[in-house]
Amino acid sequence: MITAAEIKFIKSLSQKKFRDSEGLFVVEGEKMVQEALKSGFEVEKVYRKEEIGEAAMARISALSSPSPVLALVKKPDVPFRAPSDGLYLALDGIRDPGNLGTILRIADWFGIDAVYASEDTVELYNPKVVQSTMGAIFRIPFYTANIPSLCSSYPGKVYGTFLDGENMYRKELSASGIIVIGNEANGISANTAACVTDRLFIPPFPADDPGSESLNAAVATAITVAEFRRQNCRKR
Amino acid sequence: MITAAEIKFIKSLSQKKFRDSEGLFVVEGEKMVQEALKSGFEVEKVYRKEEIGEAAMARISALSSPSPVLALVKKPDVPFRAPSDGLYLALDGIRDPGNLGTILRIADWFGIDAVYASEDTVELYNPKVVQSTMGAIFRIPFYTANIPSLCSSYPGKVYGTFLDGENMYRKELSASGIIVIGNEANGISANTAACVTDRLFIPPFPADDPGSESLNAAVATAITVAEFRRQNCRKR
Repeated sequence: MITAAEIKFIKSLSQKKFRDSEGLFVVEGEKMVQEALKSGFEVEKVYRKEEIGEAAMARISALSSPSPVLALVKKPDVPFRAPSDGLYLALDGIRDPGNLGTILRIADWFGIDAVYASEDTVELYNPKVVQSTMGAIFRIPFYTANIPSLCSSYPGKVYGTFLDGENMYRKELSASGIIVIGNEANGISANTAACVTDRLFIPPFPADDPGSESLNAAVATAITVAEFRRQNCRKR
Repeated sequence: MITAAEIKFIKSLSQKKFRDSEGLFVVEGEKMVQEALKSGFEVEKVYRKEEIGEAAMARISALSSPSPVLALVKKPDVPFRAPSDGLYLALDGIRDPGNLGTILRIADWFGIDAVYASEDTVELYNPKVVQSTMGAIFRIPFYTANIPSLCSSYPGKVYGTFLDGENMYRKELSASGIIVIGNEANGISANTAACVTDRLFIPPFPADDPGSESLNAAVATAITVAEFRRQNCRKR
């Protein structure tokens, strides 16, 4: 059974202000709920269609086809850890929820040590972000940070992709460092760009004729991170 | 000025059946409309906010923030061309509009010669697909095809990514061929897989421990195509 008040409460969590005040977020689907349960995250409550009925599930679900299971999960309180000897992503204003989720999934596949996001990056616990991480949200350390400060105080290399950067495939990429990912429309901000030590470019094909003007932010992240790992796969 | 009948007509084009019967699709935004006008596509009509008013634009626009300009574009009637001596993508059931748009944008950046899509791939002229191509829709030859037939009659190599494929970075990838991209949930279908000559795998990092179970379809496409172009960038 589920009460009307509970339904209202769960629906309120689609809004950031209630996620903030309640310290909870919503996870949907068999796989995501399993991932939540086996993660270090605290699962407050699980709602199953068999228990609450299909109509109630349709009301609490944010998905167009309601999943059979939904869970309320506590937002973890993780103490900030500065980047050190690993490979990190710094997100400089990612606005699209699908892009943020996809970037976390990429980070997970390629063993990124932590993801740092600017204040103006879309919120991690936005339902569309959560679902598109496909579970990576439970595995990748994620911190909000002032990206220019983070990068300028980092002792290692800070990489970023720019249209006037150097061909990524002709550079020796280090095994550790920060890779900055810029905003979908405007790229890397001027303040952050000032801290980038190595400007990279993903060459189009043919090299002098990119059909499109740019690549999607998550796609550029994927190609860049894959190349870092390709070059350094034997170093660890 | 715009009439009520015109508004109704434009709104009807959000549905596939009307796009099919009218042979038209909708393009929004300054950049997209410019791309349409300079492409070989026939632009039937352009609606500007200054001319029709903000309220009418909000009614005909499919975007949450209506763009200042919207155009009706004729679906081109392109005779089918089979893959020959180039690099091609074959989409085996891509269902997410954003993924299809992103894949076309990747194809455009990396100079893919044509994209072939199965009947069960999301329709190319779906407004979400169109907008997420960022203009690539006007540049990349796109055909609907029976993917198993296409691949089995192709004389060159047919590549596909599989979880049990060979590490892509340890293989010599050819400059021409077909790269098959599988469905988001189920991967490459059995009928298509039977025609794949070279099974590839994008290695996670560390190599024996993928955090996530898979990569997003567009992300896997990007990493794979980038590697083909990296290996073959000096051959043309």
